[in-house]
This record gives sequence, C-alpha cells and structure tokens, in this order.
Amino acid sequence: MSKKNNMLIDFYELTMGQAYFNQGLEKRKACFDLFYRRCPDKAAFTLAGNVQAAVEFLKDFKFEKEEIDYLRSLNLFTEDYLDYLSTIKFTGDVYAVQDGTVTFPNEPILTVVAPIVEAQIVETKLLTIMNRSSLVTTKSNRIVRSAQGRAVMEFGTRRAHGESAANEGALDAYIGGAVGTACTMTGMEFGVPVLGTMAHSFIQSFDNEYEAFKAYALSFPDNATFLVDTYDTLGSGVQNAIKVAKEILEPMGKKLAGIRIDSGDLAYLSKQARKMFDAAGMYDTKICVSNSLDEYLISDLLKQGAPIDTFGVGENLITAKSEPVFGGVYKLTALENEKGALVPKIKISDNIEKVTNPGFKDIVRLYDKDGKILTDILKLYGEKVARGPIEIKDPNSSWKTYTITDYTPVKIRHKMMENGKIIYDFKAPAQKRDFVAKQINTLKEENLRLTNAQTITINLSPKLAELKERLLEEHNKGNANIAKNTINEIEK
Amino acid sequence: MSKKNNMLIDFYELTMGQAYFNQGLEKRKACFDLFYRRCPDKAAFTLAGNVQAAVEFLKDFKFEKEEIDYLRSLNLFTEDYLDYLSTIKFTGDVYAVQDGTVTFPNEPILTVVAPIVEAQIVETKLLTIMNRSSLVTTKSNRIVRSAQGRAVMEFGTRRAHGESAANEGALDAYIGGAVGTACTMTGMEFGVPVLGTMAHSFIQSFDNEYEAFKAYALSFPDNATFLVDTYDTLGSGVQNAIKVAKEILEPMGKKLAGIRIDSGDLAYLSKQARKMFDAAGMYDTKICVSNSLDEYLISDLLKQGAPIDTFGVGENLITAKSEPVFGGVYKLTALENEKGALVPKIKISDNIEKVTNPGFKDIVRLYDKDGKILTDILKLYGEKVARGPIEIKDPNSSWKTYTITDYTPVKIRHKMMENGKIIYDFKAPAQKRDFVAKQINTLKEENLRLTNAQTITINLSPKLAELKERLLEEHNKGNANIAKNTINEIEK
Repeated sequence: MSKKNNMLIDFYELTMGQAYFNQGLEKRKACFDLFYRRCPDKAAFTLAGNVQAAVEFLKDFKFEKEEIDYLRSLNLFTEDYLDYLSTIKFTGDVYAVQDGTVTFPNEPILTVVAPIVEAQIVETKLLTIMNRSSLVTTKSNRIVRSAQGRAVMEFGTRRAHGESAANEGALDAYIGGAVGTACTMTGMEFGVPVLGTMAHSFIQSFDNEYEAFKAYALSFPDNATFLVDTYDTLGSGVQNAIKVAKEILEPMGKKLAGIRIDSGDLAYLSKQARKMFDAAGMYDTKICVSNSLDEYLISDLLKQGAPIDTFGVGENLITAKSEPVFGGVYKLTALENEKGALVPKIKISDNIEKVTNPGFKDIVRLYDKDGKILTDILKLYGEKVARGPIEIKDPNSSWKTYTITDYTPVKIRHKMMENGKIIYDFKAPAQKRDFVAKQINTLKEENLRLTNAQTITINLSPKLAELKERLLEEHNKGNANIAKNTINEIEK
Repeated sequence: MSKKNNMLIDFYELTMGQAYFNQGLEKRKACFDLFYRRCPDKAAFTLAGNVQAAVEFLKDFKFEKEEIDYLRSLNLFTEDYLDYLSTIKFTGDVYAVQDGTVTFPNEPILTVVAPIVEAQIVETKLLTIMNRSSLVTTKSNRIVRSAQGRAVMEFGTRRAHGESAANEGALDAYIGGAVGTACTMTGMEFGVPVLGTMAHSFIQSFDNEYEAFKAYALSFPDNATFLVDTYDTLGSGVQNAIKVAKEILEPMGKKLAGIRIDSGDLAYLSKQARKMFDAAGMYDTKICVSNSLDEYLISDLLKQGAPIDTFGVGENLITAKSEPVFGGVYKLTALENEKGALVPKIKISDNIEKVTNPGFKDIVRLYDKDGKILTDILKLYGEKVARGPIEIKDPNSSWKTYTITDYTPVKIRHKMMENGKIIYDFKAPAQKRDFVAKQINTLKEENLRLTNAQTITINLSPKLAELKERLLEEHNKGNANIAKNTINEIEK
C-alpha cells in the first residue's frame, strides 16, 4: 500500500489537532467508539469488516516528510504543531471484535483509547476501512446464503469503486463466503482463490463459436468453462459446447468443466441446458450463471428449480448496490481530565437514536443452550455482570424489561493493540471465512431471513444505563456534556 | 500508486491470453470500444471520467517478476506464455474524449487499438478507472448544478468504498464542480483545495461549547467555521458562535467565517440562524449545511428560500448512492485478419440494445448556431460526413429519420496514445473543472433537468449504419459474426 494513504484524513482532523495542541491538550487520553446505527438491507446484523486492516494501519501510522511539507505549504499550521505531527505515532490501545463477527447496531465494534490527537487523526481512515469492509462482507454473506450451498464467485472488479474497493472488496466477499474472485490481485495479495471463464470478445475473435471453444479447450482441457450466450445460448452455445466436449475433450480423456450463461432467462435456459447435457451423458458439466445477480434474484432462480451449480456475482455484491452507504461513525465516549481520570462523555441529539452511549465500554454476548445469540449486554469496561437472572431494558424504551435466566456469557471483543503494538494473532482469510460460517450458526433462522428479519436488541448493563441517564439529566439541568462526578476507570 | 495495481485484472483476461497465445494470435491487432448503455439517474448525458488515469495506466503497464511468479504458482499457464507476459507492454493506440466531456450512451468514450492480448489484459483496469470516475464526476456535477452557484464541498471520504474511491473520487468531485474536498490526500496528490470545519468530538472535548469555539477561534482566527448542532443549534450553538465572534474574534479585528449545521430541519435552522447573525451585524458569516445531502434535497432547500451559502456533501456524492453502479463495458469491434486488414466485429444479442456498433469508429458532434449540441454522429474512422443537410436515423428505429441543415461539426475524440506513448497534453484538475463548466453550457436546459431530462439520441453515419445492417444480415444467414468482405481501414 502506498505510504500516502496516511493522508487519507479529513482535513478537519488536522485543524482540530492544531487547536488541541495550542491548548496543550494533545496528550489527553481519549476513548472513541466505532459503531453504526442500523444494519444495511434492514437485516438483523452486520458482519464486522476488516479489523485487521484497521489495526495494521494504526501500527504503521506516521507522516512522511513530504506530507508535513504539504501541510506547511497551506500556511495554516504552526511550526511547533508540524514538528509534533512529524513525530506522531499511534501509541494507544485498541479493543475490537474479530473480523467477521456478528454485530448489532450501537455496539462498539472497535474502541480506540489513545492521546486525543492520535485518536482523532486516525478517524477517517478507520471509518473508510471498516465501513466498506463491513458492508461488502455482509452483502457477500447474504448472497452466499441465498445460494443455499451453491458456489458464489465474486466477479465485480470492473464495477467496484476503484482499486482498493475491487481488491479489498474481493477479500471481503471471500470472507463473507464467496468461493473465490476473478480479481487476480486479490489472489496474489491475500491468497484468495482466483476464478474465471471467458469474455464475449474471445468468442468473437474466432471464425465461429466452435473454433473459439476448441481453442480454449486445447489450452485448458482440465478447466474449460465456455461462455455460451454470445450468439444463441441453446441454438448455438450449448450445442457447440457439447460438440467440443465430444470431439476435443473426451478423446483427451477430459470432461467439460462447465458453461456460463450471462444473459436471457436464466431459469429457462439453465433447465434446457441441463437437459441437453444430461441427454449427452455430460452429468458433471456445471452450469454457471451471471448477469446482475443479487440475493433476491438467486433466491428466485432456486425457487423455480433452476439447476444452477454456481453463481457469478458482480456489481450488486462489490458495490453493495441495494444500500451502498454504510454509516459507521466514530464518537468520543470518554476523555481524561487534568487528574488523569477518564470522564465519560455523551453526545446529545434531538434525535433520540443519535444520543451516544457514554464511557469506556465492553460487550458481553449471551448465548442460549443451543449456542444461539439471546442478546448482547453493553457494559462499562470492568463492570461485572452478575450471574443469575438478568433483567434487561430496551435501550430506547426503559419501561420495556424482560428477564433472561439460562444463558452463557462470552466477551466478544479482544484487546488487539497495547501502546501501539499489535498483541493479537489475526487469522488467515480462509480461517476468517470459516469463522463467518460459524458466526452465522449462532443466529436463529428468523434472524437470518433476507427480508423481514427478526432483530436482536442489545441491552445496557445497570451501571451503563444509570450513567447514561445521569448524563442526560445533567445535560437537561444545563450542565452541558460534562459529568464531573462520573469517572470511568480503565481496567489495565 | 502501488505497482501491484497491474494485477487488477479479471483472471479470465489471462486465461484467454494463454489461449490466444497458443493459437499464435497474440499479435493480431484488435479494436475495443469502451462505452456505456445508459446514463445514471435517467440523465441525458454522462461526463467522461478520468481518461488521463486510464491512459497513464496503459503507459506504465507491465508485469513485475513477483507477479509472474504468482501466476506460475497457479500451475495453469505455460512457461512460454509467462515469458511473453513478462515482456509485455502496452504498444497500442488510444483515441478518447478528454476528461469531463459530455458523452451519450453507446458512443465510444475510449477506443483501444492494440495487439489483442495487450488490449484484452488491460480491460478490467480501464473499466475500473472509467466506471467510478464517470459516475462520480457526473454525480458531483448534478449536485453542483442543484446548488445554483453556491459552493459544494466534498465531505465523503469515510463513506467512500476504500482509499482510491475516496481519493480519486474527491478529484472527480472537484472536476465535476465541487469547490474542494475534506480529503487531505487529494489536496496533496492533485492540488485540489482542502476544506473542513470541526467534528462533534471537538466540542465534547471541552468543558462547554463556548470554550470549544473559543479554542478553535484562537487557533484559526481567519477561517473559523463552528459546528453548532452538538447540543442545541439555535438555543446554544448559534448563540455561542455569536458570543465568540464578539468576544474573541472582533477584538482581534477578525470576523467569524461561518457555521455548519449538521442535523435537524436545515431550512428552518438556516433561516433562524441567518436572522440571528444579521441582527448581530454578522452579515458575512456564512451558513454551511450538511447531513446526507444530494441534488434533490439541495434543490428542495433552495426552493424553500433557505439562506445557505455552502453545502457539505458526503456519502451520496462519493458513492453515487442513487445509482452506485456505472455499467461501462469494453467490447471488441474489429480484429485484424491474417492479411493485416481490420475486420469489423459485431456482438449479437437477443436484447436489441446489447447489439454492438461494429468497426473502428469516431464521433462527430453537431452544434447548433448557439453552440448547443444537436446530436452526435457515430461514424467509421476516416469516413467523411458530407457537408450540407444530414438525414439521420434513430439507431434503434431505422424508420425514424430527420434532417439537420444548420450545424457545426466537431470531432470530439483525440488520439491520446500512439504505439504506447502518450501524445496528448492533459489539463490540470482546475482546467478540467473549467472545461466541465463549458461542456455543461453546450447543453440546453431541457437536457440538464435533474428529473425527466430530454435525451439526445446519437446517430449512425450512412456507412456505419450500412455495415451494421450487413453484419446483422450475415449473422441471420448463419454466417456467424465475421463479415469477410467488410474491411475497416485504420487511417494512419
């Protein structure tokens, strides 16, 4: 990755940094939560994106000389601040869920505890990484689930929003459950399996379709998948595929791996093609389809009994077209006071959903005896959640309570960085993909529906609920946002 | 940019390359057109994206040793083909419109004429560059036009689909007409003006809002823009802004530059804030608003008479949320035969809109006497379009003709590369931005409507129409896709 990526910073992070610096506040420890307020596609959950990339970015963060020179050229910053920036590294702690974890709205996927300028300056890049990655991993998983065990291939590079969207998005797609990608770069950089068939231009480049298939079969007798819709899928494409299989591949002791249908009525064409292959004894030849597929179209094709083996999914996966914006935010939740104690902070809003959960926090997940998620408890860091029956409140409606008695509590976040050093072993992409599959098994089928999913409400622990209420009261009394009596110790 | 970007290749480009190579066809000259079939947001036109980046990618294209090693590790390619790939460079010619040109569906924004493997292997990256860039440049311009002369600032980095989407997207936004971006990287790399205000966390970090504004004003007395909606926009934010202006800035001989409102009823709040500033004699303090804005919301705010000076636009611009997929394609239109002549190729489809326009082509734009676009003529390269009255056909309905008599014809494409070398002087971003503004002036207001825009239909020249009809007839007669009698000479 280019070093200039350090400059993927919203400019206000740097001007705010100057103001903190001028006030002598730059070393004050701050606590920021990265979270989102709702799941894309009205789903019950979101799979956490590339936490590893976020943490590795923090590890390597520093400004190069040319970057400081650029900032100087703007004639806005003081020399002593630029000096400070030129020595800055990320020295904080990071707590986060691992890549591919099932997460819910309003819980901190990732928390940064670091001197405020360091914590502030990395905001933009952390959000840029986590927003796209969470979105695409989750979208991929939806599409993979819709395929009910059939393979989904990521084919979206050309429609992705640039190189990193294509390359890192293909990694997200794989972790979300796709079997591989057409993006060669992702194969090389992350070891994701690379896949592909052929383009219409290849067929057009030969005197006729038969000659094109033949040339490809001779080059790749073990993995030939013919694109059959350049002229006429059933009238020409499938027939030429069978002919080349019989005349070229079978004499070599090979079988035709598959065909791809990229246009037309995919349900009808796949059924007819299957009949033609079966009649020719080509039971192992797979049928792949593509053409603006998504989870809804795939569900529909399978409901019609289309005998499709693999789906090539492009633009709708890689851009998360149905909802291309993931609204992850990064909010201050606590700030060290002059005595070195961490004081919880709250952001008030006329919009009740936009009021933040204050303080340095942690997440405990409660599972039922079948290993399914009952709820998550958002609590203050170090707060002990009592064993035995738990009465929990709906975070937006404190009058609504219920009691859970039979559960297994598990902390779902890990301390991944300490003093700027990574202290966590990240899994390889294939293991992350396995982890996602296991995470999906912690959800009930009602939570997994592609439409009208049953949501899971997270709950605030008694102490967190009390803190939030007190801060809101203090605000209402005109004490603005600071709760002078409220200290949230960091458990070392 | 990372060298690994050369591997942003759909894997099938490489396997097709092997098959061409095995057939000894890799040096055959091919002609590919990059075009799209419809404009996003049902608009009449699309502004061509970053042609410069596409051409510069071609200039530098080559595989590194580690990339060839990776391909070898897949055990799919022959050693002689890998040797060939390791020496490959782009040696072809490129014809394209310049960045920011108004373009219409089905006309070649960019044409590559190069040995087929070279031309094929660069497909994915060319599309990845041009698709995102055309989409975001056009979306930015829509939003800028909706602001009717007021400034639009690009604020979307954190919601962009990764680093290149954020950085190059901010450049696109600027060329489309935004006044600048919050993305510092884009400022450094492309010289785009960088802008910003402050985050809610900055306000929260101080004992109260007044102290936060004061700290910022002391650091940036010339450019302070206060975020006023952390607690209560009118009841606290605007009042503190006025107080700091009077108590801190005015004694320094400075004025408050502006405020930003990021939530609530932006029409109401901006009107009330304007009244409060005017009552305080602060006529020069600008009002900036943000919060999921797009061209429709901005139009609506202005229709209500909201006294807004600048708009900060984030996620809806940088992801082109209303339509995040731009369907640019790259299709073979001609291929050299064994005698060295370029033979036009056509792609047939059951879907009439997907039938390609064959042959090596060019575009002539016809302007009326007011400098407005009448139509574009798509013609064979080198074909002379007769002066005098032109009878033109609707490309999809050959029975529909009309005659144009008073027009000025202008070729809109330039030869940008010759034998792999750039022979075109690209403009700087600020000049491209000016060029876009001039291009917009070549459209009638009916073409510029944000909804229900009047479209402009492009027309095929007599020879191109005849060629297309002949190829379709030959196909119908079972002669597949090759028109043996049809040669399309390249004019040197």
